[in-house]
Amino acid sequence: MANAIVSQSGGPTGVINASLVGVIEQVCKQKQIDKLYGAVHAVKGIVNEQFINLKKISTKILDEVAASPSSALGSSRDKPDRAYCEKILNVFKKFDIRYFYYIGGNDSANTCYIIDTMAREAGYDLHAFHVPKTIDNDLLVTDHCPGYGTAARFVACAIMGDDLDNRALPGVKIDVVMGRHAGFLTAAAALAKQREDDAPHLIYIPERPVSMEKFLADVDTAYKKYNRCVIAVSEGMSDIDHKTWTEKIAETAEHDAHGNVQLSGTGALADFLAGQVKDKLGIKRVRADTFGYLQRSFAGLQSDVDAKEARRCGRQAVLYSMKEQSGSVAIRRMKTAKYSVELFRTELANVAEKTKSMPDAFINKDGNGMTDAFLKYALPLAGKLPRTQYLGNLPKI
Amino acid sequence: MANAIVSQSGGPTGVINASLVGVIEQVCKQKQIDKLYGAVHAVKGIVNEQFINLKKISTKILDEVAASPSSALGSSRDKPDRAYCEKILNVFKKFDIRYFYYIGGNDSANTCYIIDTMAREAGYDLHAFHVPKTIDNDLLVTDHCPGYGTAARFVACAIMGDDLDNRALPGVKIDVVMGRHAGFLTAAAALAKQREDDAPHLIYIPERPVSMEKFLADVDTAYKKYNRCVIAVSEGMSDIDHKTWTEKIAETAEHDAHGNVQLSGTGALADFLAGQVKDKLGIKRVRADTFGYLQRSFAGLQSDVDAKEARRCGRQAVLYSMKEQSGSVAIRRMKTAKYSVELFRTELANVAEKTKSMPDAFINKDGNGMTDAFLKYALPLAGKLPRTQYLGNLPKI
Repeated sequence: MANAIVSQSGGPTGVINASLVGVIEQVCKQKQIDKLYGAVHAVKGIVNEQFINLKKISTKILDEVAASPSSALGSSRDKPDRAYCEKILNVFKKFDIRYFYYIGGNDSANTCYIIDTMAREAGYDLHAFHVPKTIDNDLLVTDHCPGYGTAARFVACAIMGDDLDNRALPGVKIDVVMGRHAGFLTAAAALAKQREDDAPHLIYIPERPVSMEKFLADVDTAYKKYNRCVIAVSEGMSDIDHKTWTEKIAETAEHDAHGNVQLSGTGALADFLAGQVKDKLGIKRVRADTFGYLQRSFAGLQSDVDAKEARRCGRQAVLYSMKEQSGSVAIRRMKTAKYSVELFRTELANVAEKTKSMPDAFINKDGNGMTDAFLKYALPLAGKLPRTQYLGNLPKI
Repeated sequence: MANAIVSQSGGPTGVINASLVGVIEQVCKQKQIDKLYGAVHAVKGIVNEQFINLKKISTKILDEVAASPSSALGSSRDKPDRAYCEKILNVFKKFDIRYFYYIGGNDSANTCYIIDTMAREAGYDLHAFHVPKTIDNDLLVTDHCPGYGTAARFVACAIMGDDLDNRALPGVKIDVVMGRHAGFLTAAAALAKQREDDAPHLIYIPERPVSMEKFLADVDTAYKKYNRCVIAVSEGMSDIDHKTWTEKIAETAEHDAHGNVQLSGTGALADFLAGQVKDKLGIKRVRADTFGYLQRSFAGLQSDVDAKEARRCGRQAVLYSMKEQSGSVAIRRMKTAKYSVELFRTELANVAEKTKSMPDAFINKDGNGMTDAFLKYALPLAGKLPRTQYLGNLPKI
């Protein structure tokens, strides 16, 4: 008999708690595990020995936890180095912890990796497993990442609503979506498209830098075609010199000494782009929103597929840990007609610190929209999306 | 036999289409009504004779319309004067339209009122009915307004998620909610509270001006108590001189000629408040979001109560119009243990152009939160809300 510990790290997602519950319910089935500690606020909670007893929680509460967004054990942005990890390992030794489950992104995989390496070096028998989560979907090896489907569902539902709002009161609408380096979440805006003329009409992702001239020309073309235009852009949208527009706006703001009103803060990118469209294209009704934290933590909005897979990943980490020393749980998509997946184990080093961008096959030639290959990839992950109707374009009597 | 027309005006809501479908299905039952015209883009569509045939739409599509956010017939911000209304009346005469259903806010009630008055003056037999909608909940006479419950549901779910996000990564979070004059929608943040220490910890609405000193003192107290703080503020939050903070920020931006970075745009209020909290209280992790258009048009997120009532209001307008000349449909809450309502007719003049603010009984003494009376009022309107769980505050081992 030995003890186990589980924790959650990095930015919350809509299903990271489903993975936590998966770990808890599978650990409860393992005879060789005695206590299951939940470390509060990730690695910080481990070194400070802030533990709760996760075997004491009722099934009813666990189901509510699994359905709740954000990290039920709290989180942390700490990125432990070897010295920090040594403290962690000492705590593991003190509490006879032999199973370590860490739910998080590529930084968390790296923490797992360092601890695993140090435990081996010290001859301490530890089973260290990483359970993947991100809304960015930028982890290597796995087909997709738990947390992405739910965030994608939020973005798709938001853009669907925005499409109808923009049809009712036409103009240009700019929506800024999370994603500094990978465009997967912004690309999910494409899932909102049910009819040929539906939003989004343009999508800009970090993988495809775009000049202001090209951006404005795209908007002009779309606006002339549809008499309106809804645009999804990533936070990390960048100019052709690969500098993000957000960085450029901040630089201008700092250097301008003429007392002009400068853009800054949470809405800066959205407002900057809206200003360009107004000034350069002379379009009157231009609106902009920045989706912000709602994308990752909105109550009552999970993709059922995503929630199930996240829970399964948590369970599987425990099963792997019974036989293997360490690893990260990954998802493989099966070549079946109906969407299905199987899980597999990959080495921590394959996931640690690395990130993935959108494959070229997912991005259209113009760099301003998604391909059918992307839709095929992402649609099953977001769960069944609502259908919407608009009547205003029916034939006039 | 005579013809009928229906249209939707002003800012979209999540259930204005349910009211439209209510009108359509009830009109289809009336033998004395021949054609049912849907005017596209409100009064603009009437004067330009942009009509679609609403009797031709299948029940399946109508159910999807009712479940779709925004205005399926399109909308307009035009506020017709008598000259504009005369054009409308001429179109009614031309198409033998004797029944007019207009779904909108207090401006739409006013349009209805002007047209009703002019028709009487001209001796033209017209039945003009207003069906209420707003997300602001600021119409007079009615207990509450269709559209409010669904927007309130969005805000409550957003704040629930934000509460958990803020627990996971503690700090101060500021959320700016729609509402320039009435605080009902921002107040709906209070519906997110399930546990004593849940967000929102502070709520600021236009009805209670607050000085920056008081605001900062409130945040300081809450932050010391909870070690975190989630704040919901209305767009229309104002200083004690009754000028909105948004106006004040804009003035400073215009007058400052020292090249400092000034706040402007969609995130200005949120960023300004976040800056104050950082600078004056020295709190490091301060984040801000502005919910924007998502609040009024988000696909797949209706309050079932709100959707049902909106549809019932549409149907009832048609029933009233069979016997009465004109009016606005209003909701009366019954004094029953379980929430229930009945509908009644009120004169257009009672609703036209008027607005309502939050009653004093709904606002706490400090002017920074809601009372139980408000919760009792608003909870049934938002539909059954999700339950969430957080484990991090369980007793440590």
